[in-house]
Amino acid sequence: MGTVRNARVNQGGPKCAGIVGLGLIGGSFARGYAQAGVRVLAWDPDEDVMVAASMGTVSGELNEETLGECDIIVLACYPEACIEWLEAHAQALAEATDTQAIMGPVVIDTVGIKGIVCERAFNLARENGFYFVGAHPMAGTQFSGYAHSRADLFAGAPLVLVPPAVDDSLKLELLSQVREMVRPLGFGKFSVTSAEEHDHVIAFTSQLAHVVSNAYVKSPTAQEHHGFSAGSYRDLTRVAHLNASMWAELMTDNAQYLSQELTCLIDSLSAYRDALDRKDEEQLKELLAEGDRIKRVLDSNTPDND
Amino acid sequence: MGTVRNARVNQGGPKCAGIVGLGLIGGSFARGYAQAGVRVLAWDPDEDVMVAASMGTVSGELNEETLGECDIIVLACYPEACIEWLEAHAQALAEATDTQAIMGPVVIDTVGIKGIVCERAFNLARENGFYFVGAHPMAGTQFSGYAHSRADLFAGAPLVLVPPAVDDSLKLELLSQVREMVRPLGFGKFSVTSAEEHDHVIAFTSQLAHVVSNAYVKSPTAQEHHGFSAGSYRDLTRVAHLNASMWAELMTDNAQYLSQELTCLIDSLSAYRDALDRKDEEQLKELLAEGDRIKRVLDSNTPDND
Repeated sequence: MGTVRNARVNQGGPKCAGIVGLGLIGGSFARGYAQAGVRVLAWDPDEDVMVAASMGTVSGELNEETLGECDIIVLACYPEACIEWLEAHAQALAEATDTQAIMGPVVIDTVGIKGIVCERAFNLARENGFYFVGAHPMAGTQFSGYAHSRADLFAGAPLVLVPPAVDDSLKLELLSQVREMVRPLGFGKFSVTSAEEHDHVIAFTSQLAHVVSNAYVKSPTAQEHHGFSAGSYRDLTRVAHLNASMWAELMTDNAQYLSQELTCLIDSLSAYRDALDRKDEEQLKELLAEGDRIKRVLDSNTPDND
Repeated sequence: MGTVRNARVNQGGPKCAGIVGLGLIGGSFARGYAQAGVRVLAWDPDEDVMVAASMGTVSGELNEETLGECDIIVLACYPEACIEWLEAHAQALAEATDTQAIMGPVVIDTVGIKGIVCERAFNLARENGFYFVGAHPMAGTQFSGYAHSRADLFAGAPLVLVPPAVDDSLKLELLSQVREMVRPLGFGKFSVTSAEEHDHVIAFTSQLAHVVSNAYVKSPTAQEHHGFSAGSYRDLTRVAHLNASMWAELMTDNAQYLSQELTCLIDSLSAYRDALDRKDEEQLKELLAEGDRIKRVLDSNTPDND
């Protein structure tokens, strides 16, 4: 049975990983671990997916009896389902964990917002006695489901980590554990932040991008553009195609920050429109030059893979 | 001296091309023609650029005396500057043109909007007696200037053509002339449309994309996102960096269509914000699913390079 301390000594990463939910993200964790020689236990409510994943990737079912064999457990489902799984397995997780010796499986999630999941998961972990660290792998495609998952989905991608509010030495221990346990996935960069800061930033960098892209194609002109579009249109509308159920839940859980970003963008767009309606070319030029200046500064401050 | 009829017989394209304005677009036309062995005459108000272009690309100055040597003349400057050049050279163009025999240089522009340029250019061509066809090469980069121009900028790119309101046989003659004359640039696709339809569509596919990208980075959160962003943010903000003077002129000249697109997008974005503010996950899901459906249909109707 893997333990936090044992696993840390083992620089090669985990011996056994548990995956809850075999969609795009969970499937990619499962494939990445399996490809690296890590034993994978998994659970998904869809039996067809379980059968598909059993062919070369998943060795057995993740459940109350087997979860103690895992060095890491990855919750790769929607926010509510993550909490439900944790509640149902809190007792078994606590039994597999020795908080005196800091030993036992470390649980991470993969949800795109952190406040709503981390608060409840941290409470469950503290009350029952197991280890949970919030995580958000910044990778994905516009496609969903196990069929689109791949072992190298996270290669080079950033992983954002949200540690619980515990003393600094345990916090560092948990963070270095998670880094060690996800080593086989090949993440390119680790960031540590608070759930609040994560959700504030993600509303802007990811959720707003998806809303704008999704809204962009609703112009009636979209039906006429055949043959006229260039790279800028392609880029702006790439993520218009999305998993509506998943994003609706993530966005509703982050409604305040995302609404603020939408207000900010709508106000900015209105300023350009006002200049256009007045045919005020000088003002329009100033608005465009301002965005250009900001973008230049951002690019010069930002590494390539950001 | 090249002529429309002679040039058509010459399936290899033009023998001599004239370029007005050696920025990113004009410079790329010049380099593309020169690389294909076509003699290039050019004019640019910046003497340093003329000197740089004379090294292996431009053979001589394009002016009243030399323009008659050209099979095609490409106006690659801002809208106002195009018209000014045509007005100043209308007489010389007319003298180089034989409208009875349909012989003489054919003039195209490269401006990103067509209404304001084509109307005046068509009038000048008709009144003076020379040939003009509106053109918009759908290619570019976020960088400007001769230094960034390259011979293969238009390889595979769409070229949108706007013919004058002449009789059908002359229209077809002019369009096939232009296709023949730009053959060395390697455009991937030709579309023929009216100036009005072009400007309507381009407001949506290109101008709106640039405004949205430019506005996106103005959120204060942009200053905090270091380490958190993913591909969607990169794509949404790629064209935030732009030539503000040029776009301000193009957008002001197309103010009505662009303002309509901005209104449409602002209204769509407001609907998502309203759903978020009401925490109405079902409504948000419906809005996202609608954009997803539209995007799927558009993608299935659209060839890859569109």
